[in-house]
Amino acid sequence: MSATASAAASVEAAHGLGLGWNTADPGEVRRRIRTGEYRGYTGALARGFVQANLAILPADYAAEFARFCQRNPKPCPLLAMSEPGDPRLPELGEDLDLRTDLPSYRVFRDGEFDGDVRSIGDLWRDDFVAFALGCSFSFEEALVDAGLRIRHWEDGSVCPIFLTDVECTPAGRFHSRMVVSMRAFTPANAIRAVQVTSRYPRVHGAPIHLGMPERIGIEDVGRAWQGDDPTVVPGEIPVFWACGVTPQVAVRSARPPIAITHTPAHMLVTDVRNASLAVG
Amino acid sequence: MSATASAAASVEAAHGLGLGWNTADPGEVRRRIRTGEYRGYTGALARGFVQANLAILPADYAAEFARFCQRNPKPCPLLAMSEPGDPRLPELGEDLDLRTDLPSYRVFRDGEFDGDVRSIGDLWRDDFVAFALGCSFSFEEALVDAGLRIRHWEDGSVCPIFLTDVECTPAGRFHSRMVVSMRAFTPANAIRAVQVTSRYPRVHGAPIHLGMPERIGIEDVGRAWQGDDPTVVPGEIPVFWACGVTPQVAVRSARPPIAITHTPAHMLVTDVRNASLAVG
Repeated sequence: MSATASAAASVEAAHGLGLGWNTADPGEVRRRIRTGEYRGYTGALARGFVQANLAILPADYAAEFARFCQRNPKPCPLLAMSEPGDPRLPELGEDLDLRTDLPSYRVFRDGEFDGDVRSIGDLWRDDFVAFALGCSFSFEEALVDAGLRIRHWEDGSVCPIFLTDVECTPAGRFHSRMVVSMRAFTPANAIRAVQVTSRYPRVHGAPIHLGMPERIGIEDVGRAWQGDDPTVVPGEIPVFWACGVTPQVAVRSARPPIAITHTPAHMLVTDVRNASLAVG
Repeated sequence: MSATASAAASVEAAHGLGLGWNTADPGEVRRRIRTGEYRGYTGALARGFVQANLAILPADYAAEFARFCQRNPKPCPLLAMSEPGDPRLPELGEDLDLRTDLPSYRVFRDGEFDGDVRSIGDLWRDDFVAFALGCSFSFEEALVDAGLRIRHWEDGSVCPIFLTDVECTPAGRFHSRMVVSMRAFTPANAIRAVQVTSRYPRVHGAPIHLGMPERIGIEDVGRAWQGDDPTVVPGEIPVFWACGVTPQVAVRSARPPIAITHTPAHMLVTDVRNASLAVG
């Protein structure tokens, strides 16, 4: 076995995937998705590279949504925005094709869920504008690299998210209460988590709240709005980060005739390294 | 009135001191203290410049205490250490004389309080080694400059401090539980406070704890160990920083035949700008 093949094999073994191709290479991940060979979750693939939330809207809604993102950078950190009608985002990957490179897409019509699909080539329109937004995978990787343990990584559950009573700043037809994800830490580790994630403002950045869920409209932190119900161990405090589900709620609120997002956990895998987003 | 005199006057007016000299200039502050003209608190003087905790020990204790500081950098951030017998710390101020430049000194013999004195020229020994340690005034200034409000600044009370059950790493004869200072903030401002103070590791840096005082051995956060009892308003969480009183406790624990520190709130005023200590 060559050194390269051996390295790839060990990466796959570490991920427990055993897919028989180099799951560490974001370009190869996109190619395997494009050909239909891979249709699963993206979380364990291409470690070290940014995965993005996707929102595609008709051009008539694009400026308003861009403004919504600009006004709410913690839930909606805008990584890239396409030309109208152009299914590429070359700053995130030279060969990247937004019509085929995600394992699953979610279609909304007039703000209502209309199904998940495996490609959107047949839905693509000349006036579509695509938005790629930062995702918590990036800062979670930074937390783990800093030695912190994330419970939902360790027990294989889905990260709990909550709908708060914090209103985002509206823009045109887009409005939403802020959705947050929660991770529980000891106080000392919560402080460390603030430090680590502060370095990543383009992927949600520092937490927006900690310790007092009722102050942001969360009545029972043990009952997730989406994802799995979390375990908060005595001696830990809940820490809340702005979540990329917020722009999805905002997209539905605007009720565009058609909108397309990624399906949860089926993200856009990019060639941008997480570490390249760090400030300070 | 000249522009310079006007600026000085407005600085004094802002401080409410009206002392008739330039209280904004750290060198002048030291000169007025040296001549005996000023003997009060230093907190409102020379804004923007580092004020330091002072500890003076016989040379026989110096290496052990340096090791204690090195092992416990959050409570004991060492800014400067003198040559044996030399009462100067030129890296903190060219003319600085440790025998005369603090408004009040505290003397300990065999670890017991032996009185406060106005100068230590007659106590000085050829084997004294002086340690200047970072102080919370510096990071409090950074917090206020970042737009945060510190209650004990606003109501004129003394910052509450607490003795925790967290053992510092001992070194030789020096040991202490960690002493912490407390400031209460809303969760969002607590996160901001972590970010701001993380930039100042040489003046205690990030908090060591927040939100769960009982986890660090503080039974009643409304009852200060020293300083004034704090007010924690509903919706705020207590945030705890390592405190420069810790090395004072450690100095007493070692029971050296003589040790000298500053008297609380009567600090060593230096020519080093707070902003020059920022990292990142």
